Amino acid sequence: MSETKFSLEKIAQFLEGELKGDPNAEVINVSGIESTALNTITFSTDTKTLKKAKNFLATAIVLPKGLDSSICENVIYVDDPYFAFARLTQLFKDQTQPFSQGKSFINDSSSIGEGTVISNNAYIGQDCVIGDNVFIGPNVFIGNKCSVGSETIIHANTSIIQDVNIGANCIIHSNVSLGTDGFGFAPAKSGYEKIEQLGGLIIGDNVEIGAGCTIDRGAINNTHIHDGVKLDNQVHIAHNVILGENSAIAASCAIAGSTIIGKNLQMGGLSGILGHLKICDDVFVGAHTLITKSINKPGQYIGIMPAQSHSDWAKSSVFIRKRNKD
Amino acid sequence: MSETKFSLEKIAQFLEGELKGDPNAEVINVSGIESTALNTITFSTDTKTLKKAKNFLATAIVLPKGLDSSICENVIYVDDPYFAFARLTQLFKDQTQPFSQGKSFINDSSSIGEGTVISNNAYIGQDCVIGDNVFIGPNVFIGNKCSVGSETIIHANTSIIQDVNIGANCIIHSNVSLGTDGFGFAPAKSGYEKIEQLGGLIIGDNVEIGAGCTIDRGAINNTHIHDGVKLDNQVHIAHNVILGENSAIAASCAIAGSTIIGKNLQMGGLSGILGHLKICDDVFVGAHTLITKSINKPGQYIGIMPAQSHSDWAKSSVFIRKRNKD
Amino acid sequence: MSETKFSLEKIAQFLEGELKGDPNAEVINVSGIESTALNTITFSTDTKTLKKAKNFLATAIVLPKGLDSSICENVIYVDDPYFAFARLTQLFKDQTQPFSQGKSFINDSSSIGEGTVISNNAYIGQDCVIGDNVFIGPNVFIGNKCSVGSETIIHANTSIIQDVNIGANCIIHSNVSLGTDGFGFAPAKSGYEKIEQLGGLIIGDNVEIGAGCTIDRGAINNTHIHDGVKLDNQVHIAHNVILGENSAIAASCAIAGSTIIGKNLQMGGLSGILGHLKICDDVFVGAHTLITKSINKPGQYIGIMPAQSHSDWAKSSVFIRKRNKD
Repeated sequence: MSETKFSLEKIAQFLEGELKGDPNAEVINVSGIESTALNTITFSTDTKTLKKAKNFLATAIVLPKGLDSSICENVIYVDDPYFAFARLTQLFKDQTQPFSQGKSFINDSSSIGEGTVISNNAYIGQDCVIGDNVFIGPNVFIGNKCSVGSETIIHANTSIIQDVNIGANCIIHSNVSLGTDGFGFAPAKSGYEKIEQLGGLIIGDNVEIGAGCTIDRGAINNTHIHDGVKLDNQVHIAHNVILGENSAIAASCAIAGSTIIGKNLQMGGLSGILGHLKICDDVFVGAHTLITKSINKPGQYIGIMPAQSHSDWAKSSVFIRKRNKD
Repeated sequence: MSETKFSLEKIAQFLEGELKGDPNAEVINVSGIESTALNTITFSTDTKTLKKAKNFLATAIVLPKGLDSSICENVIYVDDPYFAFARLTQLFKDQTQPFSQGKSFINDSSSIGEGTVISNNAYIGQDCVIGDNVFIGPNVFIGNKCSVGSETIIHANTSIIQDVNIGANCIIHSNVSLGTDGFGFAPAKSGYEKIEQLGGLIIGDNVEIGAGCTIDRGAINNTHIHDGVKLDNQVHIAHNVILGENSAIAASCAIAGSTIIGKNLQMGGLSGILGHLKICDDVFVGAHTLITKSINKPGQYIGIMPAQSHSDWAKSSVFIRKRNKD
Repeated sequence: MSETKFSLEKIAQFLEGELKGDPNAEVINVSGIESTALNTITFSTDTKTLKKAKNFLATAIVLPKGLDSSICENVIYVDDPYFAFARLTQLFKDQTQPFSQGKSFINDSSSIGEGTVISNNAYIGQDCVIGDNVFIGPNVFIGNKCSVGSETIIHANTSIIQDVNIGANCIIHSNVSLGTDGFGFAPAKSGYEKIEQLGGLIIGDNVEIGAGCTIDRGAINNTHIHDGVKLDNQVHIAHNVILGENSAIAASCAIAGSTIIGKNLQMGGLSGILGHLKICDDVFVGAHTLITKSINKPGQYIGIMPAQSHSDWAKSSVFIRKRNKD
């Protein structure tokens, strides 16, 4: 946790909000409305949530204009309290410069921008271009012919194999694999013949990729993750997938090869989309659902078998199977 | 495999069992009842399993009191043979000290306990407290403000990002990510605004975390994994989950954010629990099942669609879809 | 991308095909039939695919004997164009020698073959045998008593824990964990007693293991992955699984402990097979399906709940649940 203090005056300015109360009061962190703490600032989006507050201890609260504010003497009114909360967390983020440089390996053919930190035992291969103010964590491996845009953060033990272009202001979390071989084989007389993967991987700006994710390079053309995409942990994206702007995918999902997806896809956890499909903009896939056909109409798509007690499930299950004997 | 020998007398003492046979006979390993080997000790829990023995070669067998023992001249009788087997495996575990020290990086502000091994290229950040007899494998990264309890083992290439407190006697396997950012964003005019994750991750004592797992730090408060929890490989636990004592989760499961879970949860593989739910003690979730609602009654919950041949499945599937037109 | 050039004469020889056209024309890469590029060679397997070509720019095309070839003046006729394409990708694979040696740690008791590259910060423990022309990437960890066959490639940040034997001509991608402890515990008075995993992991020849996969060592006997197996990313294989020759498993699948599987298994993504089952040769498991029983008849097995719009799904779901009240 940070130990920085901010006055309510400064915070109101930062949030472009309207302060009612003491401009000199100071806060040292944020807290949630259900468990407010001393010397913090909290927030609420509506009356219902506000009622969950018990033993209110916070110094200040962020509220939407017009909401009853009797709970706290210091209030900052804003248009969108949840958005304001996101910005507040950024204010209180730990700013400690964490990592020592040195002992990394950087190939002479690669260029490193100004203000960029290359941590211990990181490795940067041939013909890479690393932008300004990039942070590369310990034990990160970046292979040949990769680029990383300015202000991007790459966490520890991540592997970026080859021909990967990452945009600016991205966060790549730990133990991620990017630009790995796609799963491509031609049937051969005995077993499989490997199709070498010759395409690259392009990642736009403002993309966040969760810990343990894997994204393959393309077979011939590129795999492409567009601007603003957010992937939770352990998501797999296969070769030649095109994933549209501002898509958000929860943990442990997988998207198979060559599927082309529009903007604003949302996927619940443990879901999948088969290969070679086309998915239009603004599709929401429920958790633990498999999409097997192309989708050309925005909306919610769900395909889970309801969880039941074992005996109820057994009855439903027998019933479903019986249908194929009709 | 170890090449240590133990006499049956010593093993009977270690297991607090009763030996019938030669106390000086020696064994060099354990073997399974279906494939016993020379100079080993095996076990069986009941008559049915005992009948699976073919070509019995073991020197000794562990049996429950009262079971027929004609299969072997050396028998150790115990109350719980399976528990005894677990303890035997601990006896025969390879004790080789595997790893060279040196060339690691340890920040001056951190303290390292007695008998602790920090392997090659491990990295320990600021303000960390590492207990006694800890083993930290090669290329492990531990960021700022973390602690590790005594006797805990952390395997190679694991990343522990920040504000993570790990208890004593834990095993963290390889390529794990702990304390990573939760998946938190506020909708913004264009795309998403990141909610910085300010909480920590607390892991109790005697916890085992499988290879490739990811556990996020909390958003404001902490994520909390209680004592005795066992996670198989590639499990994902999201931010602010509270996972009760002695829960055991099989491979490739995911638990979404802010869900609060009691003691002794068991989950089969590839299952999920949605976010913001409450799950009581002693719940068993079947494999490949999604839990979408809070559970307040102990028991088994299952939600799989039965696997069938393609043609049978197609009929069931058409039938299910037709129901929504009734 | 490589910048090597090949004449059509050389390519025809390499593919053992028949060239119609200019033997001295040169190509610098492959391209797909739907997006051909200048100075490349493309391929098509049939008339239908050939019709997808728009604005044909390639210098040459690989076709099956007898197909109409009016689209391009240079044609190489072969028996199996898709297999030929796989071989072409191998020709154009980037041959850059990517990684500097040095600064790795190799225990004196281990032997390293001729032509083998050990990259920066790789670690090789005691009593290992590494074959000829092996490539071991940066930050790879190989523990004690492991062997790696000739020509095998192990990518960055992979962890190979102990008692793992890998065959020849394998590719192990990045951030993989091999030979990790199986998920084995005996119930104890309070919680679980660990069963130490004493078996090894055997991987045959020509095996490919995707990024982020985890394969456990055996409990007493070995886990065994046979020749020619191909695993996509983030697959989990538990202890004592035996996986038959030329099986191919798509991303994010899991196979539970002690299941014995024949040759040529194919699994779609996000699928699972429970433990202690027997699966015969030539089984195909659809995506997002759970196999709960042994299978002794080759064929396709599917168990997905069809994805529907939210309102349709809700009706099907209510209907299925009602059946358990009949």
